[in-house]
Amino acid sequence: MTHKIAILGASGYTGAELIRLIATHPEMEIVALGANSKAGMEMAEVFPHLRHLSLPKLVKIDQIDFDQVDLCFCALPHATSQAVIKELPKTLKIVDLSADFRLRDPEEYARWYGGQHQALECQNEAIYGLTEFYRDDIKSARLVAGTGCNAATGQYALRPLIQAGVIDLDEIIIDLKTGVSGAGRSLKENLLHAELSEGAHAYAVGGTHRHLAEFDQEFSAIAGRPVKVQFTPHLLPANRGIVATIYVKGDPAEVHQTLAGAYADETFLEVLPLGQTPSTRHIRGSNFCHIGVTGDRIEGRAIVITALDNLTKGSSGQALQNANLMLGCDEDTGLMLAPVFP
Amino acid sequence: MTHKIAILGASGYTGAELIRLIATHPEMEIVALGANSKAGMEMAEVFPHLRHLSLPKLVKIDQIDFDQVDLCFCALPHATSQAVIKELPKTLKIVDLSADFRLRDPEEYARWYGGQHQALECQNEAIYGLTEFYRDDIKSARLVAGTGCNAATGQYALRPLIQAGVIDLDEIIIDLKTGVSGAGRSLKENLLHAELSEGAHAYAVGGTHRHLAEFDQEFSAIAGRPVKVQFTPHLLPANRGIVATIYVKGDPAEVHQTLAGAYADETFLEVLPLGQTPSTRHIRGSNFCHIGVTGDRIEGRAIVITALDNLTKGSSGQALQNANLMLGCDEDTGLMLAPVFP
Amino acid sequence: MTHKIAILGASGYTGAELIRLIATHPEMEIVALGANSKAGMEMAEVFPHLRHLSLPKLVKIDQIDFDQVDLCFCALPHATSQAVIKELPKTLKIVDLSADFRLRDPEEYARWYGGQHQALECQNEAIYGLTEFYRDDIKSARLVAGTGCNAATGQYALRPLIQAGVIDLDEIIIDLKTGVSGAGRSLKENLLHAELSEGAHAYAVGGTHRHLAEFDQEFSAIAGRPVKVQFTPHLLPANRGIVATIYVKGDPAEVHQTLAGAYADETFLEVLPLGQTPSTRHIRGSNFCHIGVTGDRIEGRAIVITALDNLTKGSSGQALQNANLMLGCDEDTGLMLAPVFP
Amino acid sequence: MTHKIAILGASGYTGAELIRLIATHPEMEIVALGANSKAGMEMAEVFPHLRHLSLPKLVKIDQIDFDQVDLCFCALPHATSQAVIKELPKTLKIVDLSADFRLRDPEEYARWYGGQHQALECQNEAIYGLTEFYRDDIKSARLVAGTGCNAATGQYALRPLIQAGVIDLDEIIIDLKTGVSGAGRSLKENLLHAELSEGAHAYAVGGTHRHLAEFDQEFSAIAGRPVKVQFTPHLLPANRGIVATIYVKGDPAEVHQTLAGAYADETFLEVLPLGQTPSTRHIRGSNFCHIGVTGDRIEGRAIVITALDNLTKGSSGQALQNANLMLGCDEDTGLMLAPVFP
Repeated sequence: MTHKIAILGASGYTGAELIRLIATHPEMEIVALGANSKAGMEMAEVFPHLRHLSLPKLVKIDQIDFDQVDLCFCALPHATSQAVIKELPKTLKIVDLSADFRLRDPEEYARWYGGQHQALECQNEAIYGLTEFYRDDIKSARLVAGTGCNAATGQYALRPLIQAGVIDLDEIIIDLKTGVSGAGRSLKENLLHAELSEGAHAYAVGGTHRHLAEFDQEFSAIAGRPVKVQFTPHLLPANRGIVATIYVKGDPAEVHQTLAGAYADETFLEVLPLGQTPSTRHIRGSNFCHIGVTGDRIEGRAIVITALDNLTKGSSGQALQNANLMLGCDEDTGLMLAPVFP
Repeated sequence: MTHKIAILGASGYTGAELIRLIATHPEMEIVALGANSKAGMEMAEVFPHLRHLSLPKLVKIDQIDFDQVDLCFCALPHATSQAVIKELPKTLKIVDLSADFRLRDPEEYARWYGGQHQALECQNEAIYGLTEFYRDDIKSARLVAGTGCNAATGQYALRPLIQAGVIDLDEIIIDLKTGVSGAGRSLKENLLHAELSEGAHAYAVGGTHRHLAEFDQEFSAIAGRPVKVQFTPHLLPANRGIVATIYVKGDPAEVHQTLAGAYADETFLEVLPLGQTPSTRHIRGSNFCHIGVTGDRIEGRAIVITALDNLTKGSSGQALQNANLMLGCDEDTGLMLAPVFP
Repeated sequence: MTHKIAILGASGYTGAELIRLIATHPEMEIVALGANSKAGMEMAEVFPHLRHLSLPKLVKIDQIDFDQVDLCFCALPHATSQAVIKELPKTLKIVDLSADFRLRDPEEYARWYGGQHQALECQNEAIYGLTEFYRDDIKSARLVAGTGCNAATGQYALRPLIQAGVIDLDEIIIDLKTGVSGAGRSLKENLLHAELSEGAHAYAVGGTHRHLAEFDQEFSAIAGRPVKVQFTPHLLPANRGIVATIYVKGDPAEVHQTLAGAYADETFLEVLPLGQTPSTRHIRGSNFCHIGVTGDRIEGRAIVITALDNLTKGSSGQALQNANLMLGCDEDTGLMLAPVFP
Repeated sequence: MTHKIAILGASGYTGAELIRLIATHPEMEIVALGANSKAGMEMAEVFPHLRHLSLPKLVKIDQIDFDQVDLCFCALPHATSQAVIKELPKTLKIVDLSADFRLRDPEEYARWYGGQHQALECQNEAIYGLTEFYRDDIKSARLVAGTGCNAATGQYALRPLIQAGVIDLDEIIIDLKTGVSGAGRSLKENLLHAELSEGAHAYAVGGTHRHLAEFDQEFSAIAGRPVKVQFTPHLLPANRGIVATIYVKGDPAEVHQTLAGAYADETFLEVLPLGQTPSTRHIRGSNFCHIGVTGDRIEGRAIVITALDNLTKGSSGQALQNANLMLGCDEDTGLMLAPVFP
């Protein structure tokens, strides 16, 4: 059976990544591509690497006949997404890749995103899209909210540890390094090649990055009490890939065992042998997430390192994994592409 | 039907790329991986990005039972390859990725590679592996010789033009830029990150690069008289991708029309509209080759630009395309992966 | 004696490079920095790498008292530059880094830059700033027009050869590869890190790049008859550096000898031994230009390769070299910084 | 007065960096370059970027007449360095860039470097080369031991804080990211461009990096009791630059004030305004170190971020700064080069 797919925001990196992945998906067909500012263009003009595919022309969102669509990926910017989704048919299955439906508490949304939510009725039915932890809810969901790419990276390391109670909840530090594609295709001086290559720097230092809202929401829910982590992202001179180095207090062997146990049956989450360290190079372009645990020389402290591709497992791959569940496909359909190295 | 595949030289980049591609090939199963110096290791140790695959352990070549193998990819270094292939069963189908069986004239081999060929009986039955031009011969071949990655890039631009007689055969200049993975995983000072990043330089300047032997052989055969091109490769601070800028004398519209006509039915060779320019970024990680033609401001001169991924269309993708033909699979099986961008 | 210096357009890359170089110049003092859109800011905000220097605040150009200025560098965009320079005191020494005063023929200017020149009276007194060839004129000039960075790279290889009559004037091909800083700090999608890194492509193919106007003007003047070259620039995933691979017809030894002879006494132009090849890595951050000559395997053809740093020898270093001459300083003052490698 | 300088290990990156810096030093002249495996070569062959300098040929160390040398930089590998220095004249001033003389306790040396020290009599007179903290001792020293580049980066952030008692000594985490040139010019698979570019990974995780020995020695000495930090280095796809993100418990304003006060008179140590973040791009190629302090959203926690160039302030620039002191030159002579950006 072929499911008819629409992608809104097809002219951005996550939109293009969705198309790349769906290109070899045997049960999906892309029937509509929405992208307001580039409406009227062929995809080969916007993303020449997709030139070999037969794809519909880009159109304005209101030109799409959603009656012909089984599932819609929404890869629009924050705020735009809620305005658009609010107006879509209430029966349409939607996977949203923006931040708009990630936070269950409207006050938290307003605090982190600086304004009232405009589609709370949609928020109420949205399921948080971290597949491995919300799988059953996602299967029957109408609207799934893709996680932040950094938020996914940190949660894969920490959720089982918080759940199992094997680490100190008040002493968690996430030092994260991310490639630049996470910032999208926007024209900002600090994303120019000449500003970025051959160097690195921290940004949003001190607890101001919006993905902290997801950490707070999820970790506190698991722990049953407020959990606040420290989180410092850094920008790498690389296009794809996130590596998070996470400092926790707990027994390294127990930490490793907890993660290995939690993910023993997961296709995309690979826990390395104790003492091994993942690299972004080894998951690039794939939906895999590698997780390593090492004990520190100081007793009772462990370092958990997680690596995933922000455009794949961190957003578009996750979105497709969720869409597979929502449409009744096998969860890994179209997602078993091996990483591209070198 | 599942074909049983062996890969010799599995610890190099072209070996790893073969595994990446075959990983999603529905009709092939890897039954043996040979790699002498790393024999005994798991693939996940040698190439952690392949960790998610169930693969046989690396073994010494003489430990492989070739009776259980339908087709063998040989991704060994030059010279080693002929010594190994010489001893393999004479009925085994082989796709060689080295330079050892590319040159039909043993004297040319000796001149460019500095020694007598050690397996001329194999050379005699070898088919040159530029798929689109040797397709029928490859279908029935026992031994196919993969082309040089630079040689493929240049030939896709020039073969139809020489064939059609639309360019001056004595005035062809190929200025080529290649990523570093073409040099393999060998430990050379000039391949270190610190020596290579943030710069570019020409090498093998003046007509000394060995891939010229293939240009000479092929272009002269097509033209029915000796053809010698100028060829200057440059090393780019990038891992994958070759872009060749080729200066010819001929009518640009005719040049474009000739290429567009020649490749109209080819899946992997895309001729862009006249005046458009390809980029290595738009074919990275894929088996596609993009070809652009632009007229110069000087009348009667055209610039043909070709881009392909040296590890895919330039070697391992080409090898798989040939193997598909040899085994009776559809030619594009396992090769329709979209390029990875950004 | 200390010369008082103003820099207009101090918030761009060439402006910053001027400040970097002048920082260790013993006879120059920066007294004014003009930058309209960023007026009011400290240099440390605009370019934090200059934080250690005591520099004047950025001001609007009309706030500068040019009576206190001995020499003004004008690093403004094309078109803006002529409008500004037209209004500056007619006695002020000026080194312009834009394209506005490079072309002696107003019709050529109009043809390549798409509009009438607005300051022809200034154009009439402008000296073309390729130091080694206009040295005497520059010494007494009031207004010097910096060359295009690509134009400088090509001319260092070709001027002596055209002058000496040792190459075929109708068969010159310049295949050039440049880092991205030449495009400035402007917000363009194709200059984003994610669009540029890990790849390469040609642009302005077919004879449309504006630096051709300089090649035409200068080469024709030397030859005493029209000379038209082919010129294809490529964008590299690197910030600094240009390498031009130039194909000529002529005797390689004679070509080499001609260049070595012409530049024997030049501090910044280094002709490598015959057969050696320069690299952008070996001139990065410096005012040096390396030139290599190799004979092709086809008799009577030579390849000349030139490498320089587009921000230094290609623009700001050249500008300072010219300013030194105009102010009576030693020509190499402040310019003997060694290249930065790796 | 001109001081006569020898450099041993001139064929490595720190040797080349010393030559680059000394090239514009008005009071030093290089009279000997030692490099055993490349003895007999010209520097222009080993490092073509130094081609413009008049330098002595590389010779074997035992061919150098040390009577003609005022100061010797020793940029040899660990272990080799102590064997060589042991045999040098006992009156010769030496700045060693290796790890051999950094640890005052021979047992600590044996534990971290895996063998008995072979030149304890030299170790006894060696001064630890962190200039700003050992300035007076260095002035009168005969042998100065350059610090580890990572060790310097961490100490600039932490020494004043430990000294002032404003942070919790048991809760210090140094998450450090370094460019690849710190690993030198050695042929290792993991330093190849194809293995390194476009990604990042942690190494020596869990407290096994040898620079920890320096942290332990220095921090414990300042605190007057054992201090053990956590330290995780990461490899960046960049050639130069270290950025260390350091998590401490203490009042951010007090932390900032302590650092700003401590370094108010230091030429090369720049403390940014509270809340600002340094970048490796802004110190590249220079002897400057930028330090930023930000408070976390969790009260009582601060993040201190330090950036320096591992080849300059982290090794060769530091070495020259120390040599200036030892020879009675102004401390900043030859070191005021502005960073190279972009």
